[in-house]
Amino acid sequence: MKVIPEDELTVIVNTGDDIEFYGLHISPDIDIVTYTLAGIVDEEKGWGVRGDAFRCLEMLAGYGYDTWFNLGDRDLATHLHRTSLLRQGVKLSEVTDQISRSLGLSVKILPMSDDKFETWVETDAGTMHFQEYFVRRKAEDKILDVKFLGAENASPAPGVIDTILRSDPVIVCPSNPIVSIGTILSVKGVREALRRSEARKIAISPIVGGAPIKGPADKLMRGLGLEVSSYSVAFLYRDFVDVFVLDVADEEEKERIEELGIKVVVTNIVMKSLEDKVELAKTVLAEASK
Amino acid sequence: MKVIPEDELTVIVNTGDDIEFYGLHISPDIDIVTYTLAGIVDEEKGWGVRGDAFRCLEMLAGYGYDTWFNLGDRDLATHLHRTSLLRQGVKLSEVTDQISRSLGLSVKILPMSDDKFETWVETDAGTMHFQEYFVRRKAEDKILDVKFLGAENASPAPGVIDTILRSDPVIVCPSNPIVSIGTILSVKGVREALRRSEARKIAISPIVGGAPIKGPADKLMRGLGLEVSSYSVAFLYRDFVDVFVLDVADEEEKERIEELGIKVVVTNIVMKSLEDKVELAKTVLAEASK
Repeated sequence: MKVIPEDELTVIVNTGDDIEFYGLHISPDIDIVTYTLAGIVDEEKGWGVRGDAFRCLEMLAGYGYDTWFNLGDRDLATHLHRTSLLRQGVKLSEVTDQISRSLGLSVKILPMSDDKFETWVETDAGTMHFQEYFVRRKAEDKILDVKFLGAENASPAPGVIDTILRSDPVIVCPSNPIVSIGTILSVKGVREALRRSEARKIAISPIVGGAPIKGPADKLMRGLGLEVSSYSVAFLYRDFVDVFVLDVADEEEKERIEELGIKVVVTNIVMKSLEDKVELAKTVLAEASK
Repeated sequence: MKVIPEDELTVIVNTGDDIEFYGLHISPDIDIVTYTLAGIVDEEKGWGVRGDAFRCLEMLAGYGYDTWFNLGDRDLATHLHRTSLLRQGVKLSEVTDQISRSLGLSVKILPMSDDKFETWVETDAGTMHFQEYFVRRKAEDKILDVKFLGAENASPAPGVIDTILRSDPVIVCPSNPIVSIGTILSVKGVREALRRSEARKIAISPIVGGAPIKGPADKLMRGLGLEVSSYSVAFLYRDFVDVFVLDVADEEEKERIEELGIKVVVTNIVMKSLEDKVELAKTVLAEASK
């Protein structure tokens, strides 16, 4: 079931989670998006390739490596391919494109930047890469601060600014406002392009009833002194968003968000089934054409 | 069943088969020796790790890579580990040592050289890396010549010359006299050290009844204009070998080899069972102590 033609869709993806293991360049968010759109993601886990095994990782553990980052055997092929191309001087955006085409996608997947950019968190257990906090330490440490290492020098990947300026609508997916959307917004020129763009900019709240739909957004927001609410997310996007899509559970936040000058649409945003996904996509697109 | 204490054994291994795939440094012969001695080799195949699968390779095929070199998922961990250490500037000999220790070995496994050294073959189907001829093309092309690329600049790895000079006996295993033993002999100083060494040097024939016990030794020998026989192998080693161990099937070659000034021992050298292996080892060691 396709709501819009794939080849008209461009997805700009966070690369702040990128990390190196065993000499391989891992791009967790790009891979999740790519595998999901290619229909090969392990849907139960929400990451990795369906039916994968972990023989390589088990053997690496025997060689004394940390293996808390779950790299499946099939998944490893993507990292070997990516790393091999990067070593040849191919840019991450071009690598990402090659991988998604190999997997049969006509959606365009764009890393937010080709440059080194790493999200680190300061916690009560020390300062660490976001993936270490999230995967290894199961997001259990108290967040004190979030740092985007390399943000000053990271340029948007070719096509990022152009996509923002030329696409209509621009949809901000229901994702972590700090370490997924926040990272993208921190890349030079991105926020400015969103402000300048004449497209309809529609954000979907990642928070329902005071808690994130998934992931540690609440912990990060709280750690930065932010209220954990849809309003709070709308506030973070207030300078560029036209429409904010809220769950029915949060209807009472509608007025506060409207006071930010943002139009609010209330609907079901928790996508449990394909029908939920299609309904939400249709609602968002209907809003876009208003 | 151990015939000699493991920690008194050093194995010098051919690295002419080393090859790069997907940015990984593969050392086929070192790995076979290491996995075999560690008891994890896939004995049916004669290479790789027992119980391995090929998920990563299948996915790499989807990305358009050649996948004729069979890299199992567990096996990949060894190559990732090795490559990662080599990139950090660790020498192949040190890497090999680390890997064999991780796998619980006290045998010392020494690559013949830490330097780049590649065995290429000239065939009627073109010039190619030995592994391409052997694995991809199933040793079906006619061999015209064998080249050791890098041999002029390859120094023996630390310990190689010393091991040859200090060990007694030195055993030349029943292996390909051109592309396994021949490569080792071509490394600067190795042949000279074997000649100078006062140890008993015992070679076991890789040929039984005019055919190699396994592998393409016959094709390589024929391609270089050599007779395919135990005598021919003894002839190649005549300048340093004291004792040549021959299979009972080749007893008629005894005299010709003795005429080279080499003592000949005739026994069963085809190792089908553990008993065969132990018997051969005992025979060789008994000869060494004479």
